[in-house]
Amino acid sequence: MIAEGVVVVERLLASPYPVRGLLGVRRRIEALDLSDLDVPAYVTSAEVMASVVGFHLNRGVLAAADRAPAVSFDALADRSQRLAVLEGVGDHENLGSIFRNAAALGVDGVVLGPGCSDPLYRRSVRVSMGHVLRVPFATTDQWPAALNSLRHKGFTVAALTPRASALHLADAGLRGRRVAVLLGSEGPGLTEEAISAADLAVRIPMSSGVDSLNVATAGAVAFYALL
Amino acid sequence: MIAEGVVVVERLLASPYPVRGLLGVRRRIEALDLSDLDVPAYVTSAEVMASVVGFHLNRGVLAAADRAPAVSFDALADRSQRLAVLEGVGDHENLGSIFRNAAALGVDGVVLGPGCSDPLYRRSVRVSMGHVLRVPFATTDQWPAALNSLRHKGFTVAALTPRASALHLADAGLRGRRVAVLLGSEGPGLTEEAISAADLAVRIPMSSGVDSLNVATAGAVAFYALL
Repeated sequence: MIAEGVVVVERLLASPYPVRGLLGVRRRIEALDLSDLDVPAYVTSAEVMASVVGFHLNRGVLAAADRAPAVSFDALADRSQRLAVLEGVGDHENLGSIFRNAAALGVDGVVLGPGCSDPLYRRSVRVSMGHVLRVPFATTDQWPAALNSLRHKGFTVAALTPRASALHLADAGLRGRRVAVLLGSEGPGLTEEAISAADLAVRIPMSSGVDSLNVATAGAVAFYALL
Repeated sequence: MIAEGVVVVERLLASPYPVRGLLGVRRRIEALDLSDLDVPAYVTSAEVMASVVGFHLNRGVLAAADRAPAVSFDALADRSQRLAVLEGVGDHENLGSIFRNAAALGVDGVVLGPGCSDPLYRRSVRVSMGHVLRVPFATTDQWPAALNSLRHKGFTVAALTPRASALHLADAGLRGRRVAVLLGSEGPGLTEEAISAADLAVRIPMSSGVDSLNVATAGAVAFYALL
């Protein structure tokens, strides 16, 4: 995976991801603490950076790393109190934003169900501000069986949906409980089978005539409501 | 201003903005109800659309409109129960997202303080899903005097900031009151003079080591907390 910019590269250096090397302009490389790092850090010109990145508005430093070993679904669930569980979130920016919001609002991990993109795609890493490297995630293709597993592990699985029959988020009694918030893709939303496999459906009360919120924004509101 | 795509053009047609004309491919033009519209709607090819828009991934229909008459700060404040007040929000996507979230979460209007972009910039219109055409906004250069005016009109002005000394949003007693939520730019945040002119500073509790949330996301959480 590739990390871009001083803030994200700092998060990479603090993560378990094995760094291969860095490339950057002098000012950016010197902004990093590389004293404990046993990998090459190449200093180059803005022109070479632009030709490597493909455009001039890059952030002046890149790092390449291998993936950290994957976390299993069971291991992640067993050690988490609050989870975000995603179905069909293919948009890289939304995915990155969900990780940023999860990190800020006390979510312990993210479960990627079917149809989700790779959180380590460069755009997701950047939009997440590097939090894809801090918030652990696991992938599952047991769907919707994974939701039943979460219930057996003691989670309340709450499907977030704009439908009117869902409970108001604030009235669902989720605060302080072990909760998995189920989020779907922005267009079609969650599948019926995922909603059916959840313990309950919750909604954010919204003004009439308005599209649902962006999935990352809706997730942030839900994470906040759990705190 | 320019509206792009069926959903945003529909919102434009339902708004007080005087439409000049439409241009689109047949499928998109036919998806619109133009029966009460006394302006030209030109049907063209995808190739002409691409050359007009400048890229192929356009949404197949454009509408051009004049601005609706501006709303004054006083008129907007006097008729609103909940306001978002922005300082230095120059990013067009963030600005558009704030309008989308305001529309969804019951905010009656947006006040644009110094350093804000034009909500009718094309990218903001698109990201807002057209809600810049539904949520009224007013501009002020009386800063931070406008915040004092809001207080005199009976608003509680709550500055949203990540600083630790601020009150937890849920403990600030804002729910059900007439509130103006003050939001700053994502990088530097609100100015000291704006925070000083507010009645109180509120924060969203966040995990340590995490950057603040995106300004539009933080705004959505605050709007939700007021409902």
